[in-house]
Amino acid sequence: MTTRTQRRRGNARQARLKMREEAINKRPVHAGLIGGAYKPLQQGDLEKIHRTALEILQTIGIGSPTPEVIEYATGAGCWVDGNGRLCFPDSLIEDSIAMAAREYTIYSRSPDHADLQVGGYHVNYSTSGEAVSIYEPAERSFRPSTLVDLYDLGRLVGTLDNIHQFGQMVIPTELTDPREHDFNVAYALCAATQKPCEMAFSDARNVQPAIEMFDLVLGGKGRFAEKPFLSFGGCPIVSPLRFGEENLDLLVETSRLGLINDIAIAPQAGATSPAAMAGTLAQVTAEGLACLAITNIVSPGCPMTFAIWPFISDLRTGSFSGGSGEEALAMSACAQLGRFYDLPTSVAASMTDSKLPDAQAGFEKGITAVTAGLAGANRILESAGMLGSLMGCSYEALMIDNDMLGMAQRVVAGVEVNDETLSLDVIREAALGPGHFLGQPQTLELMETDYLYPEIADRSAPGAWEEEGSLDIMARARQGVSEVLSRHYPDHIDAQTDAAIRAKFPIRLASGDMQSGNGRW
Amino acid sequence: MTTRTQRRRGNARQARLKMREEAINKRPVHAGLIGGAYKPLQQGDLEKIHRTALEILQTIGIGSPTPEVIEYATGAGCWVDGNGRLCFPDSLIEDSIAMAAREYTIYSRSPDHADLQVGGYHVNYSTSGEAVSIYEPAERSFRPSTLVDLYDLGRLVGTLDNIHQFGQMVIPTELTDPREHDFNVAYALCAATQKPCEMAFSDARNVQPAIEMFDLVLGGKGRFAEKPFLSFGGCPIVSPLRFGEENLDLLVETSRLGLINDIAIAPQAGATSPAAMAGTLAQVTAEGLACLAITNIVSPGCPMTFAIWPFISDLRTGSFSGGSGEEALAMSACAQLGRFYDLPTSVAASMTDSKLPDAQAGFEKGITAVTAGLAGANRILESAGMLGSLMGCSYEALMIDNDMLGMAQRVVAGVEVNDETLSLDVIREAALGPGHFLGQPQTLELMETDYLYPEIADRSAPGAWEEEGSLDIMARARQGVSEVLSRHYPDHIDAQTDAAIRAKFPIRLASGDMQSGNGRW
Repeated sequence: MTTRTQRRRGNARQARLKMREEAINKRPVHAGLIGGAYKPLQQGDLEKIHRTALEILQTIGIGSPTPEVIEYATGAGCWVDGNGRLCFPDSLIEDSIAMAAREYTIYSRSPDHADLQVGGYHVNYSTSGEAVSIYEPAERSFRPSTLVDLYDLGRLVGTLDNIHQFGQMVIPTELTDPREHDFNVAYALCAATQKPCEMAFSDARNVQPAIEMFDLVLGGKGRFAEKPFLSFGGCPIVSPLRFGEENLDLLVETSRLGLINDIAIAPQAGATSPAAMAGTLAQVTAEGLACLAITNIVSPGCPMTFAIWPFISDLRTGSFSGGSGEEALAMSACAQLGRFYDLPTSVAASMTDSKLPDAQAGFEKGITAVTAGLAGANRILESAGMLGSLMGCSYEALMIDNDMLGMAQRVVAGVEVNDETLSLDVIREAALGPGHFLGQPQTLELMETDYLYPEIADRSAPGAWEEEGSLDIMARARQGVSEVLSRHYPDHIDAQTDAAIRAKFPIRLASGDMQSGNGRW
Repeated sequence: MTTRTQRRRGNARQARLKMREEAINKRPVHAGLIGGAYKPLQQGDLEKIHRTALEILQTIGIGSPTPEVIEYATGAGCWVDGNGRLCFPDSLIEDSIAMAAREYTIYSRSPDHADLQVGGYHVNYSTSGEAVSIYEPAERSFRPSTLVDLYDLGRLVGTLDNIHQFGQMVIPTELTDPREHDFNVAYALCAATQKPCEMAFSDARNVQPAIEMFDLVLGGKGRFAEKPFLSFGGCPIVSPLRFGEENLDLLVETSRLGLINDIAIAPQAGATSPAAMAGTLAQVTAEGLACLAITNIVSPGCPMTFAIWPFISDLRTGSFSGGSGEEALAMSACAQLGRFYDLPTSVAASMTDSKLPDAQAGFEKGITAVTAGLAGANRILESAGMLGSLMGCSYEALMIDNDMLGMAQRVVAGVEVNDETLSLDVIREAALGPGHFLGQPQTLELMETDYLYPEIADRSAPGAWEEEGSLDIMARARQGVSEVLSRHYPDHIDAQTDAAIRAKFPIRLASGDMQSGNGRW
């Protein structure tokens, strides 16, 4: 029975939620903007790629299927060919596309942040990347990343308005045991931010226990299943056209559990997929559709991100190049392929080949981030803080990229054209009157709703800029990071819950690491 | 009569031209790529903006018309209203749009560079900006720009493959006399590069004499009229909705002479046009159509760039912000409006509010440059080297932006989808064979034609990068600029022609400034 106090609390909470939602939506940019104004491929191109993908799945198939997957798939109409490869009939693929989840939600644990609506033309930007190192600006070099870094990066993401999800940016390199890795990453994410999260488990057996941890965090058994705040990463394909055993096991397990399968399929054009971009798109589409079929055979309608991420090689060296024009184009094309199938998508963007946050990092990130958003990618991962083609991560880059993503989102948000915004009367009044629009009520009214102001990007007059020390954005980011991280120690897990989690899991984040005055910042 | 030697020379030249053209087109990016895959406005939006612009022109009109323009315009059906404003009937505007030049060509003076095809969905990137200062990296401050800077910037642009036109980037601040300004700018452009050029004359009376100079450069009277290598800048509108006398005179003069009217109309949203972006688009469209009408009344079919450039204000300060998401969006929308009318267009992009080439400059430039190209802007001006919202210019930024523009153009170039590029057989061979594509003939074949490699952007492995001194792109640009400018003193004007020009015009560039060993670099 609901008491009166509970009802009143509920009403107050509803009112707070509504106010917060209005505040979030008042800004010109927010999670879930509508993209799709950029279409790199023609309709006929999409159909040709689709037909080629079907032919690949039927006549080449996917190598290294596990016995469990063979059993699932052959029961649904697949066959294993003479090379031991799992082949998929067109009809099964078409059925999988038809029955697949069209959208999913990754919830925020706080009304201060938006839930992620993933599907349609909604656009959201997320971190991720699982880098193994952190950029140290003073030395211009990289050091191994740690669990504390993951926690600190999450605290920072919690304060950056233009980043909508905290995905695992770094590997805690000191944790070599898969069980310790999985539970500590899960805990660090929950402790650092209440934004929607993402992580990749090392071992499928750790997923179910982790959900017990998430239920503790949410304050009751079964709560995570009701409102999942985390999506489950993994790479079930080793390109070209082969399954990776461990991540395939994970896909089957998370599908059985009905969790959000947040995979990534990342062939590298010229190395593990064709140098011809159309061929890479056809291959990665086939690889994505194979995963979609497995997911929907195991658990019809279970959410899966159609996450086809063609990476680009620098063909002079064969090494991965994250920040090229080819990359921006390929990822945008994949976002469009996802819309062709009406599936929830993710792509990788805002990557850079630069090793530090310089002008190169700026333009490589800006171009890839805005094109992915305009193409209507539902979730844009790797989108902040990454350097050196995902090798490293940088606190300063993360804060700079928040402004970069704000700008990209302002482009995605678009123009509203109607009788009011066309402003005929406002124009008449200004032209026949004062000759300017500075005092117009419309100008004051639209100042906060239609215009986005950067947090640390500089717009000062040249004289003022020189007087303040001619700082570049990297210097301002260093100041900003230090200011946030020295004071912002959020209390996202209460003491009792924390004790319960620590009693059950081998948590390595010391409580001293989670309080100010620890000397880190 | 053509001699045999002349014919042979002619044939050899033709062969060289063909080889060069093939080399230019073999790269994945070049002048004249096809844009248009990004459409920020819906068809209905375009029509609403058009109708509002017609209503503005008919009922509010354009203030401060000159007596000469009143005479031209009233003869064609316009009227001057009670406020002294020139009003345009719908029919005249529709007729102007119908009779206007659909395209024009700005020629290169050398087969080493492409001619600019301006019209349709062709995309070309150009410098321009007329800044008054040069960024000095060592001091992190700005100094006044000079004539020698303009010449040096042109020499640099001549070597940067992804910049297709050299427009006047800086004002020679030491030349205060308009006549000296105009002739010296014209000469500096011709001496610095044979790429297509652009400049803005201070005084309409200097245009005809300058054409005599251009004819001298081309080696014969009337040659410039046959193959114009320069377009004529100017801002005939003072927003909101008023003519600027001097630049209107210039527009009338260049129209009479049948030259390429390369105007720019730049209201500032929230200051000299509405804060509502749709209103700004309607007003600037009206301003552009007024200029189109004047041009076509004076000289039907005379080429004019439909150059509607809505600038954005930071509404907290009222000052111009060149590097915002709003700016990227507004310029892209204007490129699309130009295609709606099927007129040759220009927009301004790659501007930044940053005062130096840092990550902020990188992402602000990258986002604005790629969206303008994808929207199909025919000429994208201000596209390289500018800083501080066009206040300053930087040699290093110019070289960095060349890589940025290459990346943007690679996105615009798009994906070719056909049976060959879909690569089914290549995929089958790799998947069933070695499991990679590294040795595939296709990979080697497409290495130069489908992939673009940056000039100074870093793609090295992290270890190699640290060993080479952990340089950022700014440091590499400083080295690159110095290497080019200390040795590249092109011989674009032969001694005899040079003497003829100097005999006739007050040329201030000393021959010592135009040779190596002058100590500048």
